[in-house]
Amino acid sequence: MKEQVLYLLKKFYPEFVSGELICRNLGISRTAIWKHVQTLRAKGYGIAALPHVGYQLLKAPDRLYPEEINYGLKTDFVGRQVYYYERTASTNEIAGDLAGRGSPDGSLVVAEEQTGGRGRLGRGWFSPYGKGIWCSVILYPPVNPVDAPPLTMLSAVAVARAIQGVAGIKAGIKWPNDLLLEGKKVCGILAEMNAEMERVNYLVIGMGINVNVEDFPEEIRDVATSLKIYSGQSVSRVKLLQVVLKEIEQFYKVWLKHGFAPIREAWKEMCVMLHRRVGVSGMKDVVEGWAEDVDENGNLVLRLADGSLRRLVAGEVSLRR
Amino acid sequence: MKEQVLYLLKKFYPEFVSGELICRNLGISRTAIWKHVQTLRAKGYGIAALPHVGYQLLKAPDRLYPEEINYGLKTDFVGRQVYYYERTASTNEIAGDLAGRGSPDGSLVVAEEQTGGRGRLGRGWFSPYGKGIWCSVILYPPVNPVDAPPLTMLSAVAVARAIQGVAGIKAGIKWPNDLLLEGKKVCGILAEMNAEMERVNYLVIGMGINVNVEDFPEEIRDVATSLKIYSGQSVSRVKLLQVVLKEIEQFYKVWLKHGFAPIREAWKEMCVMLHRRVGVSGMKDVVEGWAEDVDENGNLVLRLADGSLRRLVAGEVSLRR
Repeated sequence: MKEQVLYLLKKFYPEFVSGELICRNLGISRTAIWKHVQTLRAKGYGIAALPHVGYQLLKAPDRLYPEEINYGLKTDFVGRQVYYYERTASTNEIAGDLAGRGSPDGSLVVAEEQTGGRGRLGRGWFSPYGKGIWCSVILYPPVNPVDAPPLTMLSAVAVARAIQGVAGIKAGIKWPNDLLLEGKKVCGILAEMNAEMERVNYLVIGMGINVNVEDFPEEIRDVATSLKIYSGQSVSRVKLLQVVLKEIEQFYKVWLKHGFAPIREAWKEMCVMLHRRVGVSGMKDVVEGWAEDVDENGNLVLRLADGSLRRLVAGEVSLRR
Repeated sequence: MKEQVLYLLKKFYPEFVSGELICRNLGISRTAIWKHVQTLRAKGYGIAALPHVGYQLLKAPDRLYPEEINYGLKTDFVGRQVYYYERTASTNEIAGDLAGRGSPDGSLVVAEEQTGGRGRLGRGWFSPYGKGIWCSVILYPPVNPVDAPPLTMLSAVAVARAIQGVAGIKAGIKWPNDLLLEGKKVCGILAEMNAEMERVNYLVIGMGINVNVEDFPEEIRDVATSLKIYSGQSVSRVKLLQVVLKEIEQFYKVWLKHGFAPIREAWKEMCVMLHRRVGVSGMKDVVEGWAEDVDENGNLVLRLADGSLRRLVAGEVSLRR
């Protein structure tokens, strides 16, 4: 019910809402309203209360509360169910547990801080309190596991488009799914799946978006950046996340219906690694070549020195001179 | 320590072992031996005790106890660590949890009974107490998820070989990994994986082998059988499981080193669906055709009526006339 009170205040913002109107709309007593207002204030909301006039929302806290994410969210199912944590080891871990217990399609796990944030290939992800979007989306695509990898590339495109739409900043994609600004990582995506050999049980798309991070630990300062460091401006995390969720849902629907082809085109336009000389370090070796294309399965197609082509499923790409 | 007492009794079986020898070998007191013998008896072991002579193993219970599985097990790592349950919902579920917490490579989860045994594609698996091998093996193959599917076919070959070796019964393989006797299912395999898009975190190979099941519920009586129903003979579950584990380890090593090719040949020899007219029901439709081959990725290659080839990743195969 406190959400309903908040939504009314938001709806009328920046005007006052009379206590009488709230009572009538929500069918609750003035005492109940007062209690909800106190609860909201404790969560960080600024709310003015004037006798005989009513309540007025002054400011919302910079928190990724479910009610903040849901208010004004333009999706059918992605992000509708939100699991919010102030602090957790890893949102992907929580999301995996929830998905195993059948949490709804599109459920979102979000944390202000991750104490054990996970990056690709067993690396960590720096996730300081309130400074970024550390979240995971649960999906149940009716596909075979071999068809799942494009979902990470889809997510990279979705986040890049959201950043451009909300912050006006154009990030480049590094294969397969990192987002870069001036060569430094501003977003990483860690997709994990649980599958039988012939169908995906569930998929978790973990995203770490460095939004308002102001400083990084020394060991990653040369390779990491944030929207704020890049532009000097703070960006609303709630607004950005809402658009990320909308873009993901939109591209997910396209993918389910038309496959990877349309996404591949969008991805290629944003990629900063194609048609350049690159090195790719994989599980076993390092391959150097000319990044010629990304194929219909999302593999990186390298032209090697001897003129032959090699398709790479995974690896860490870096530019060569 | 009770395992050590048991191993000594097994080593000397069918002879008596003197209390003095046990004391000396294990560095424990006669009182301690007596306690361990009582514990073993409570677990179902028949042990004779003669004053001034010693102890003699009379019989081991028909249980898949870790110490039974490990005694005489000829593997390096598969089945060395055993998690034993009298009764559990699903060994795959337990194995998934254990793998997520880093249980050793090759760990085995085994249950006398599954109350919610899982089959492929969300179906159940009838798993009555003490009558079959309901188990799951945890593996951490250093591969991409797209390369994992052959592992289920590898497991089918391993189980078929073990059944032939221990019971002298030749089961046929139905693509991708069911084992059949006279057209009825005697073993099903449910492999599940947890993966990032570019590497497998862990893989769980669940096996349900109908060993000494004497009767099936009516609804599956026409499609299920057991080694005992087929041959009239009971088969030692411990012995069969030990050989299954050995075969899995052996083929797993081959696969890691040489890939799917050698296994594919073995698989094809055992398959009863190739070079026949089949129908395959998939997620969306039913395809009919001539089962021409299984390709290097484990896909079923069908020759359709119009002469074209179609590769199937998943589905339920049945013979057509």
